[in-house]
Amino acid sequence: MKTIAYQGEQGAYSYLTAVKAFGEEPLYIGMRTFKEVFDLLHNGQADYAVIPIENSLVGSIYENYDLLNRYEAPIIAEHYTKIEHCLLAAHAVPLKNIKKVFSHPKALEQCKGFFSKHPWMEAIAYWDTAGAAAEIAERSDPDCAAIASAQAGKIYKLNILKDNIEDDPQNYTRFVTIAKRGRALHQADKISLSMHLKHAPGSLAKVLNKLGTQGMNLSKIESRPLKGSPFEYIFYVDFEFHGQKVEEVLYLLSELKSEVELLKILGFYKAARAFS
Amino acid sequence: MKTIAYQGEQGAYSYLTAVKAFGEEPLYIGMRTFKEVFDLLHNGQADYAVIPIENSLVGSIYENYDLLNRYEAPIIAEHYTKIEHCLLAAHAVPLKNIKKVFSHPKALEQCKGFFSKHPWMEAIAYWDTAGAAAEIAERSDPDCAAIASAQAGKIYKLNILKDNIEDDPQNYTRFVTIAKRGRALHQADKISLSMHLKHAPGSLAKVLNKLGTQGMNLSKIESRPLKGSPFEYIFYVDFEFHGQKVEEVLYLLSELKSEVELLKILGFYKAARAFS
Repeated sequence: MKTIAYQGEQGAYSYLTAVKAFGEEPLYIGMRTFKEVFDLLHNGQADYAVIPIENSLVGSIYENYDLLNRYEAPIIAEHYTKIEHCLLAAHAVPLKNIKKVFSHPKALEQCKGFFSKHPWMEAIAYWDTAGAAAEIAERSDPDCAAIASAQAGKIYKLNILKDNIEDDPQNYTRFVTIAKRGRALHQADKISLSMHLKHAPGSLAKVLNKLGTQGMNLSKIESRPLKGSPFEYIFYVDFEFHGQKVEEVLYLLSELKSEVELLKILGFYKAARAFS
Repeated sequence: MKTIAYQGEQGAYSYLTAVKAFGEEPLYIGMRTFKEVFDLLHNGQADYAVIPIENSLVGSIYENYDLLNRYEAPIIAEHYTKIEHCLLAAHAVPLKNIKKVFSHPKALEQCKGFFSKHPWMEAIAYWDTAGAAAEIAERSDPDCAAIASAQAGKIYKLNILKDNIEDDPQNYTRFVTIAKRGRALHQADKISLSMHLKHAPGSLAKVLNKLGTQGMNLSKIESRPLKGSPFEYIFYVDFEFHGQKVEEVLYLLSELKSEVELLKILGFYKAARAFS
């Protein structure tokens, strides 16, 4: 039986995305931190993991970029999930009764407008959205609520006091599936890389331009500090390629040697349609 | 008298950097959030503000990038400050007596190694390093400590139980001074921009390349989500230029129109020597 790791509790957006990708059959293991998810994969206790990598409102999940670079856990797929937050409570009480609302800080941040319209509610940070739902179910406190998915509400038998409470309905998270080891993906049309460039003027432009002229389309670039070398960066880039084979892309990358100090392929995979 | 705004309490790294830049004379006003700092400047209640923009270990302060883009608060200078954290307490007790340690989450994150060597200490998030020092002084509790600068320890009359407790001594923060209005800076050799590029393959490479061939040296690139347009980005870029006049750089930027949807100049200023 396949084992799939994710961060959070059952009903978390990572869990929902994993189930969308792998179905009901596998064993799902929710961990408290992203590092624990990577460790589980690294130690062979999980076959795959599904982790969030960026959100359309709050930006990249930087911790996961750092972990992808540190661990050998190739990306083999990507997924977009629409984030729709609900206010969930153990009892079907009116909104004015709710004093405390628990959720993940990112989810609370995405519902700022809801809190300014309901100023008597106090937002309280919790490690996970679905974990907050589980906590609310256990407490069964009539003045407490959680912000999580409708599915988390269903799992923990909570009442939906209000749905779609996020400020911006254009709220999507991009997740990736990472694996214990890579797969030869003949139908891959997207690659994720991390690069440490040589400290020379114009290095980044040269690299992007070389790949760009070969018809590779840069879909994302992210920079993170390189520890031990203040104000040098690791660049994370995603490229989509069409009409090229994976081998041709690998050859292209090998030609970047003069500009690049270190290059790591984080994964080859099939681009997902955004917002599916 | 000049009024300078910063985030935090007296003794915070932002405060120390501001004093380094403006001396003892001005009136310094510490605000609770970065947004409040920008508002103070915007409302004319402060002449300048000093804000952190990136740290060599934990990366960019994304909130300040977003605020720089939203407000009209031109960058007029940059500064590097070495971050040296101390464990500060109201009483000169041995380390084994300390049960709770208060500080800003970023500072706690930079001292992870210290906490794993002293597992009996609980790290507790506080809104500001110097604010945590002030709190510890007020509580005068023999089992509590704060992580903050040695100068904060001096201001709040605390004992330094241990200095340089950060994991990595290569810990620098880059700050910028922002102003109510821009200044004509003839000696400027650095520019910060935000750009929303046209959604076409290779746009970013084309822009970077155009500037790169004109001898402008890209020193930083950062991407942030563009709200309302999932998975489109605003790019923040810093370029250093030497041997060119500000007017020439402006002309160069005007030539990028075909690639760029929106371009905002966040400021012209003199590059600071890193780690001074």
